Amino acid sequence: MPDSALSGGDIVLVTIVLAVSLAALAFAAYLVRAVMAADQGTPTMREIAQAVQEGAAAYLRRQFKTLGVFAVIVFLLLLVLPVHDGGWGTRIGRALFFLVGALFSALVGFIGMTLATRGNVRVAAAARTGGYRPAFRIAYRTGGVCGMITVGLGLFGAALALLLFDETAPVVLEGFGFGGALLAMFMRVGGGIFTKAADVGADLVGKVEAGIPEDDPRNAATIADNVGDNVGDCAGMAADLFESYAVTLVAALILGQVFFGAVGMVFPLVVAAIGVIASVVGILASNPSKNDASGLAPINRGFFTSAVVSLVLVAAASFTVLPDVADVPDSVVSPQVLGFVAVLVGIVLAAAIQQLTGYFTETSRKPVQDVGRSSLTGPATVILSGISLGLESAVYAALLIGGAVYGAFLIGGGAALYAVALAGCGLLTTAGVIVSMDTFGPVSDNAQGIAEMSGDIDEEGARVLTDLDAVGNTTKAITKGIAIATAVLAATALFGSYNEQVRAAVDGADLGEAFSLVDPSNVVGAVLGASVVFFFSGLAISAVSRAAGRVVFEVREQFRTHPGIMDRTERPDYGAVVDICTKDSLRELATPGLLAVLAPVAVGFGLGVGPLAAYLVGAIAAGTLMAVFLANSGGAWDNAKKMVEDGAYGGKGSEAHAATVIGDTVGDPFKDTAGPAINPLIKVMNLVALLIAPAVVGLSVGEDQNTAVRIAIAVVAALVIVGAVVVSKRRSVVVGGASADAPTSLTTSVP
Amino acid sequence: MPDSALSGGDIVLVTIVLAVSLAALAFAAYLVRAVMAADQGTPTMREIAQAVQEGAAAYLRRQFKTLGVFAVIVFLLLLVLPVHDGGWGTRIGRALFFLVGALFSALVGFIGMTLATRGNVRVAAAARTGGYRPAFRIAYRTGGVCGMITVGLGLFGAALALLLFDETAPVVLEGFGFGGALLAMFMRVGGGIFTKAADVGADLVGKVEAGIPEDDPRNAATIADNVGDNVGDCAGMAADLFESYAVTLVAALILGQVFFGAVGMVFPLVVAAIGVIASVVGILASNPSKNDASGLAPINRGFFTSAVVSLVLVAAASFTVLPDVADVPDSVVSPQVLGFVAVLVGIVLAAAIQQLTGYFTETSRKPVQDVGRSSLTGPATVILSGISLGLESAVYAALLIGGAVYGAFLIGGGAALYAVALAGCGLLTTAGVIVSMDTFGPVSDNAQGIAEMSGDIDEEGARVLTDLDAVGNTTKAITKGIAIATAVLAATALFGSYNEQVRAAVDGADLGEAFSLVDPSNVVGAVLGASVVFFFSGLAISAVSRAAGRVVFEVREQFRTHPGIMDRTERPDYGAVVDICTKDSLRELATPGLLAVLAPVAVGFGLGVGPLAAYLVGAIAAGTLMAVFLANSGGAWDNAKKMVEDGAYGGKGSEAHAATVIGDTVGDPFKDTAGPAINPLIKVMNLVALLIAPAVVGLSVGEDQNTAVRIAIAVVAALVIVGAVVVSKRRSVVVGGASADAPTSLTTSVP
Repeated sequence: MPDSALSGGDIVLVTIVLAVSLAALAFAAYLVRAVMAADQGTPTMREIAQAVQEGAAAYLRRQFKTLGVFAVIVFLLLLVLPVHDGGWGTRIGRALFFLVGALFSALVGFIGMTLATRGNVRVAAAARTGGYRPAFRIAYRTGGVCGMITVGLGLFGAALALLLFDETAPVVLEGFGFGGALLAMFMRVGGGIFTKAADVGADLVGKVEAGIPEDDPRNAATIADNVGDNVGDCAGMAADLFESYAVTLVAALILGQVFFGAVGMVFPLVVAAIGVIASVVGILASNPSKNDASGLAPINRGFFTSAVVSLVLVAAASFTVLPDVADVPDSVVSPQVLGFVAVLVGIVLAAAIQQLTGYFTETSRKPVQDVGRSSLTGPATVILSGISLGLESAVYAALLIGGAVYGAFLIGGGAALYAVALAGCGLLTTAGVIVSMDTFGPVSDNAQGIAEMSGDIDEEGARVLTDLDAVGNTTKAITKGIAIATAVLAATALFGSYNEQVRAAVDGADLGEAFSLVDPSNVVGAVLGASVVFFFSGLAISAVSRAAGRVVFEVREQFRTHPGIMDRTERPDYGAVVDICTKDSLRELATPGLLAVLAPVAVGFGLGVGPLAAYLVGAIAAGTLMAVFLANSGGAWDNAKKMVEDGAYGGKGSEAHAATVIGDTVGDPFKDTAGPAINPLIKVMNLVALLIAPAVVGLSVGEDQNTAVRIAIAVVAALVIVGAVVVSKRRSVVVGGASADAPTSLTTSVP
Repeated sequence: MPDSALSGGDIVLVTIVLAVSLAALAFAAYLVRAVMAADQGTPTMREIAQAVQEGAAAYLRRQFKTLGVFAVIVFLLLLVLPVHDGGWGTRIGRALFFLVGALFSALVGFIGMTLATRGNVRVAAAARTGGYRPAFRIAYRTGGVCGMITVGLGLFGAALALLLFDETAPVVLEGFGFGGALLAMFMRVGGGIFTKAADVGADLVGKVEAGIPEDDPRNAATIADNVGDNVGDCAGMAADLFESYAVTLVAALILGQVFFGAVGMVFPLVVAAIGVIASVVGILASNPSKNDASGLAPINRGFFTSAVVSLVLVAAASFTVLPDVADVPDSVVSPQVLGFVAVLVGIVLAAAIQQLTGYFTETSRKPVQDVGRSSLTGPATVILSGISLGLESAVYAALLIGGAVYGAFLIGGGAALYAVALAGCGLLTTAGVIVSMDTFGPVSDNAQGIAEMSGDIDEEGARVLTDLDAVGNTTKAITKGIAIATAVLAATALFGSYNEQVRAAVDGADLGEAFSLVDPSNVVGAVLGASVVFFFSGLAISAVSRAAGRVVFEVREQFRTHPGIMDRTERPDYGAVVDICTKDSLRELATPGLLAVLAPVAVGFGLGVGPLAAYLVGAIAAGTLMAVFLANSGGAWDNAKKMVEDGAYGGKGSEAHAATVIGDTVGDPFKDTAGPAINPLIKVMNLVALLIAPAVVGLSVGEDQNTAVRIAIAVVAALVIVGAVVVSKRRSVVVGGASADAPTSLTTSVP
């Protein structure tokens, strides 16, 4: 291993990076002031926004309380887990940075969401009085806060760890990445269940049964729906992208140290710092202008400006920071070229994914139009065409991502894995802009909801908000594609780190065929890895169905017991639905969460390091495809519905519309619960594998070998998973009991 | 490698096996006579049956004509492909046995289907006059013919090859397995598209739009629907199980030779011969009796009798045929124990899969009841609950299959792969019974259709046929589960053979990290393997949608231009719909077929033997889960619909019923087109890999190394796939054009 202690020059560079990260936070503060200074709209709007703010904040507070306990347990476990080649200082550092990672992840989600719940009403107000451009600007800047905090905190944590721990920083950063990923996964799953339980529940009762429009204030689930947009699409997504960012940096640092020593750790941080600068430029460039062909034009301008700035600066940095010769075996190019090309691959991948996702989910393109047309033959063909669209488009995305990994592999030679990690960093140089684009979605969605519910909006203003919402739908789909690409690159790199970890732990001993693809036990490992992705998706989807069912029964009950709601003489009890969603999503997130953390523990301790490696490969392969499949099917259904609502095939109220509404409802948990949660899932599992690798090796070979303890740990992990699954199945019995009375209430509530 | 020339004793044993295979065919002939002797029912029934027979035979003839050309091309390619360690004799033998395999596969499908189209009307007639027990017996015996031909021809081919080619038989049998698998895959895909295009098309126009019941003779798609049951569920499934049987034997022979020499090849044949005897006993034991608790009881009796007979005989054979000591490294048990336990694992797996699939798809069990209940909140929740049921149940099936592989691995030691292959043989000792059970499904389904259409059936007879159909639905779901389990075991074993092939081809040279899980190019390979499964599924589903769309427009057009059809004064043109389905399914099968054959070629020649191995692992992992997911979701929706039709939640005509009909329609291509085709897909890809391995190695290393040729082959393969995909996308444009007029015809056809 090359010398990996930081030189004086390195320390200066990392200090500059630290300063850049603080500058990012300062820019975020500047954007906050700009957003908060805007007009808050009419009293009714404020009142509604207030209810959403309170609901969202209450949910996050409860979630953090629950997760806090869990974080403390993991903290203690991390202290127990052995660290290869490091003493108690490293071990404590890793555990503490786990808490920091978790805290930052939570913070990004919390701040992003808090601002989103303030930005939304200001966007509505601006649409009412100022028109499209001011409304767009506020929505995008609200997103910008989220984006800058994401990159700022991620970079800050990584740079700080490197300054404090020097050579042992990679191990400490495993904790940081794990904290971020774990929290993000729980926020993704919990928020995803919340938002879709409310949304699906509201749609089923409102649009389908009671025949009232979306966002109608008579529907008791509307406030919960708006709260959900914030806790799911906003807080969850922000935490998720934060962890993508942090984990990618962590993987790059670990592998950089292996292949190039200190400079290998410094370079990814420099790339990330360049990303901060590029993001600021990109956010400022995203101003709508009169000449824009579509609502997406300023968004694209911001993204591509940011990509170009990154590219130029990274080229300069590669040839300054990296050495021009190094003894990497089989490498066809110099480290300088390697660094630059790898980052370039990542940037190009981001742009390609953006185009691809756009093609498959935009209303104006053939795929969505085909789905829309299939509504003529009813809901079944809408579902089938959406599913085949999703399956096929997942393959194109996988080919792009696979192509990027292979490209990095080809130029990387012996340092192929580092090249893959750098491609991940390249993908994330535009992270600030990507998060801004993404948060733009729920903010616009909420703005429309608030305006609609308040009734204080004229036709012109409503049109502005509809346009913003449509742009937001596309940006949301695009960022999902990019998020899963970062997940695959980061996971592949982490997976390489896992290999290094195992090799270090066996201390040069021959691993033999342990990592061979053709070992039947490794084939089993791969099947198990793919299984977890399927199981996790199934659990998330059924959790939404269950929770949505409870929302439906609550809203029906309110309509039944308070007939005044329908003729607007009574006010529905919004809080009751928010409460159901909060409780259910927190309860439902336990099973998938435990599965993600404990399945690799069971496989690793039970079957060994080889099957665990195969498990990760199976999870990456199946996870990539499943995530894109779910995201794109869902996105296409959503936009097919919008297409019909815009007048195609009979427009609103037609049979075709009813068919696309069914498609959209099926797509909701696909695209906003199960799909995006696969992204942190893959990384959590890779990080768990990385963390337990020394312990598994220790119990399997050498003097501390202890098969009984090893198997016992695996069995306990497996039993906890089984127990959690059994408990969640019990819950479905409870709902079944409640819904046994349903035929009556169904009949009474159908108009 | 142990000595692998057959001894005199071996030759005697294999000759006995050959005689047993002929006895199986004789028993099939006996069953044919028994079936054909039964009464053929009323003239109307005969007339309808005649139309179905003609449609089905015409389809198969055209299909075989198309596939014949393809088979000749592959035959020539096989002559060109190098064989490791064998001369022209082996090469020609392999190519010829490819044709034999393809012919047998086609023959099994053709005979099975021909008899099914004769058995169906006899079942209808027996239900009319004789009641439940005679009708059951004819349906089951019709299936029995299929079952005995499957095992008879499979065993005959394998035994003959061993007698003729002795030591080089495994290489020759690669051709046999490939021929069987390739034909089966095309028959599965083509038949699957035909049957579901007709079924979905008939349902969409008939039940959903025109409000006429299933199998109503006014619907022009009904005959096509019945033809489809035969060409898809019957011919396709029979060919598929034949290739499962053949490929499993092939894998066992290849690996048996590697680990134990001649006896390692003889033992799997002995196990299979035992299976023939067990199947005869099982089929004879499947007679319904007065004391049966349910329609499934005699079916289960047949299966478990067969399993017990196999077990006892295999125990005896293991301890007689296999040596009690051998120099297999790391093996914890003697070859005798290894042989017996491995086969036992397979038999137990078959029983476990049967129970599991039953649990997830039977109407009386909780999962289907939950899906049924979700119909109260509309179609969207039906779809969501079916999808999450499918995803979760796939994981349980994968755990069972993975557990079996792991169990075989644990006892197998150094010969782990042989143990896996033997477990596959164990799974298939009950193959005769399994095929009988499966064919029982479409025969009963058709009998009901014919009776319904003829109108010559009373209430009592109709009830008998409905009961038989329900039993058939469950047996069909169970055999799908078992089929995918055989696919995974066979593929894992074949995959091991691939490894042996590569190692033999590099002639002892160090493969280094080529097969390492942690190589990024192998991660890419795994992603590509999983991608093909997703792409293949997407293509199959969209092919059904497209073809069903054309059926819908044709039937609507007939209703519109011939108003007399509705009041029964005119006869619809059934032939036109059969014709559409025939043409479309033959056209649509090209793209998925080429993908399956050429994708491994592109990956192997393009990226190398390591990524190709990873590709196979990715395909096995994703394929297992996807196949079970699609089969079980579809089965559950089908039975949820039956549950509502039996009176739950408002019964026929209720909102709940409409919701479950939508679920069933979505499930149709899941369970009968995409899902079951994944089974041969996995094996075709493994066999292609096995066949091209020496060529890939030859072009990659050693003196004949030629990167340009290697890359050129990969590029051509990739371009053909891209071309096929582009052409199939063009087709969807044509349909789009046709359906542009749809709003009008939709409006006119809705009653």
